[in-house]
Amino acid sequence: MKKVINAPEQVVEEMLQGIVLAHPQYVRRLEGFDVIVRTNAPVAGKVALVSGGGSGHEPSHGGFVGKGMLDSAVAGAVFTSPTPDQVYEAIKAVDSGKGVLLVIKNYTGDVMNFDMAAEMAEADGIKVAKVIVNDDVAVENSTWTTGRRGIAGTVFVHKIAGAKAETGADLEAVQQVAEKVIANVRSMGMALTPCTVPAAGKPGFTLAENEVEIGLGIHGEPGTHREELRSVDETTAHLMEKILADLKLASGDEVAVLVNGLGATPLMELYLVNRKVHQILSDASVKVAKTLVGNYMTSLEMAGFSISLLKLDAETKELLFAAADTPAFVQA
Amino acid sequence: MKKVINAPEQVVEEMLQGIVLAHPQYVRRLEGFDVIVRTNAPVAGKVALVSGGGSGHEPSHGGFVGKGMLDSAVAGAVFTSPTPDQVYEAIKAVDSGKGVLLVIKNYTGDVMNFDMAAEMAEADGIKVAKVIVNDDVAVENSTWTTGRRGIAGTVFVHKIAGAKAETGADLEAVQQVAEKVIANVRSMGMALTPCTVPAAGKPGFTLAENEVEIGLGIHGEPGTHREELRSVDETTAHLMEKILADLKLASGDEVAVLVNGLGATPLMELYLVNRKVHQILSDASVKVAKTLVGNYMTSLEMAGFSISLLKLDAETKELLFAAADTPAFVQA
Repeated sequence: MKKVINAPEQVVEEMLQGIVLAHPQYVRRLEGFDVIVRTNAPVAGKVALVSGGGSGHEPSHGGFVGKGMLDSAVAGAVFTSPTPDQVYEAIKAVDSGKGVLLVIKNYTGDVMNFDMAAEMAEADGIKVAKVIVNDDVAVENSTWTTGRRGIAGTVFVHKIAGAKAETGADLEAVQQVAEKVIANVRSMGMALTPCTVPAAGKPGFTLAENEVEIGLGIHGEPGTHREELRSVDETTAHLMEKILADLKLASGDEVAVLVNGLGATPLMELYLVNRKVHQILSDASVKVAKTLVGNYMTSLEMAGFSISLLKLDAETKELLFAAADTPAFVQA
Repeated sequence: MKKVINAPEQVVEEMLQGIVLAHPQYVRRLEGFDVIVRTNAPVAGKVALVSGGGSGHEPSHGGFVGKGMLDSAVAGAVFTSPTPDQVYEAIKAVDSGKGVLLVIKNYTGDVMNFDMAAEMAEADGIKVAKVIVNDDVAVENSTWTTGRRGIAGTVFVHKIAGAKAETGADLEAVQQVAEKVIANVRSMGMALTPCTVPAAGKPGFTLAENEVEIGLGIHGEPGTHREELRSVDETTAHLMEKILADLKLASGDEVAVLVNGLGATPLMELYLVNRKVHQILSDASVKVAKTLVGNYMTSLEMAGFSISLLKLDAETKELLFAAADTPAFVQA
């Protein structure tokens, strides 16, 4: 295992220290917990958004804590759900009295632990709502998941529901727009290499020299199949075919695109993917309102990428373009 | 070679297409050239900044074209200087009559080709000035370089000189502040793995399973030495010692920090580096005004990182915090 770390058991603690030291204008540590909150939390008069999950997906989710996106991110051990008490502390720390929306990726552990935390907070009289993101069209049911997995499309939920919350909307309205994003976002990825969880010390799986896995999950869960590495245009066309079969776009529709790197993929290659995504959408007379290309939800040092498409309407488009100011996503 | 590409000879062309398709609000292609310019170039009443170099360092430099940073980036073949005619076309495309500053990283090919382009533009009556960035303290002279190499500290030059140009300052003043940044920025890096130039098809060098190279250049040029992988705290302390021996900070000084990933390093690990950087600076009573952590100047899929420190004064600090709006760097 070749990693720039001190000790596997310290990586989450030390990473959280490093995040807070880097971005004190945005975030602070919730003392005694693996929880990052906005510097000015709780923000008066605003529904709060809490997300999180296992660590190793940075900048998800701590990088998206700030104005116009999340109020808190809870960091579990690497690729492991945070415990209910940690999520509960996050909810209490950010609630301004207007309620808290939990944005949960669809993994059994996350869903269960965020649910328990919600019950604990509700017992304190805090209004809590939740949404579960399941944008990965690759497979139904998977290691650690019943139904579809939540992957990089989650970033659009943070952005759009976060912008809605900034308008002063109530909890039900923020939840509704988050549900709308989830209903309209689809993703699928592929990987060229595995990654190594520090505590495990060795890669979670192996791939042959010229072999890739299509539809792989962000923790290395199996995808649809393995195949020989093809050209970026062929691979992108295949992923887009699966996404578009599920999302069903019509000529004239408008979308947002996220080409997400899994951690070790050069930006050069992500732009090659983006080129083909735009060609396919252009051929289908689908308009692209906004494109994001970069590392938004990673899997440590895994090489590979995912494509997410979000079908927009007037409301989600306006919220997508609203200002945001967080460590990993700034929009004027 | 496991890469998400079509063909090695197409990567730069297709990448540039992918960049322009992703960010039409920021950049456009200079028709017929491997040159990215601001959508609204030339910007009236403003000195223009042109940078560039070999491709493979994305988001450098095309990702920094936009308001408050560069007016144009010229993309050479992977790890290869752009030719003079390409740089010349960039200069002509962005000059508003107020002159053009070339920001050149100190590699013999870049310096020579940007110089020739400057002469061609001057023969047309365009005012051209240049600065040469040589922030890498690792080694004097290197493969392709006489003197010190220019690496990630260049991003601070783009940011601060770009902000100065937005104020309407003249060419001499923009050049002066760029020179001030260069005089006050120092960097050093290390690598855990090599990277593969697509046209070469195999890694540029090899490292043993537990071996790293200290002071490695962004094209894989040799560093100071190889050693067994140490802890992040030890490695960071070593790099900081070399940087601080050269930069000579005093108690009470204020700096900006850039912890730059080389392409395949998880953000988690960069934050661990950042934690130790801040501890060392805090112990020396040096104040950190701003911290950047992420992939700013990469080496394809190389694993590793560099640390850059910029000593600030009132002018450079104000310009560092000025608004910027580019594909890879946005600041409200």
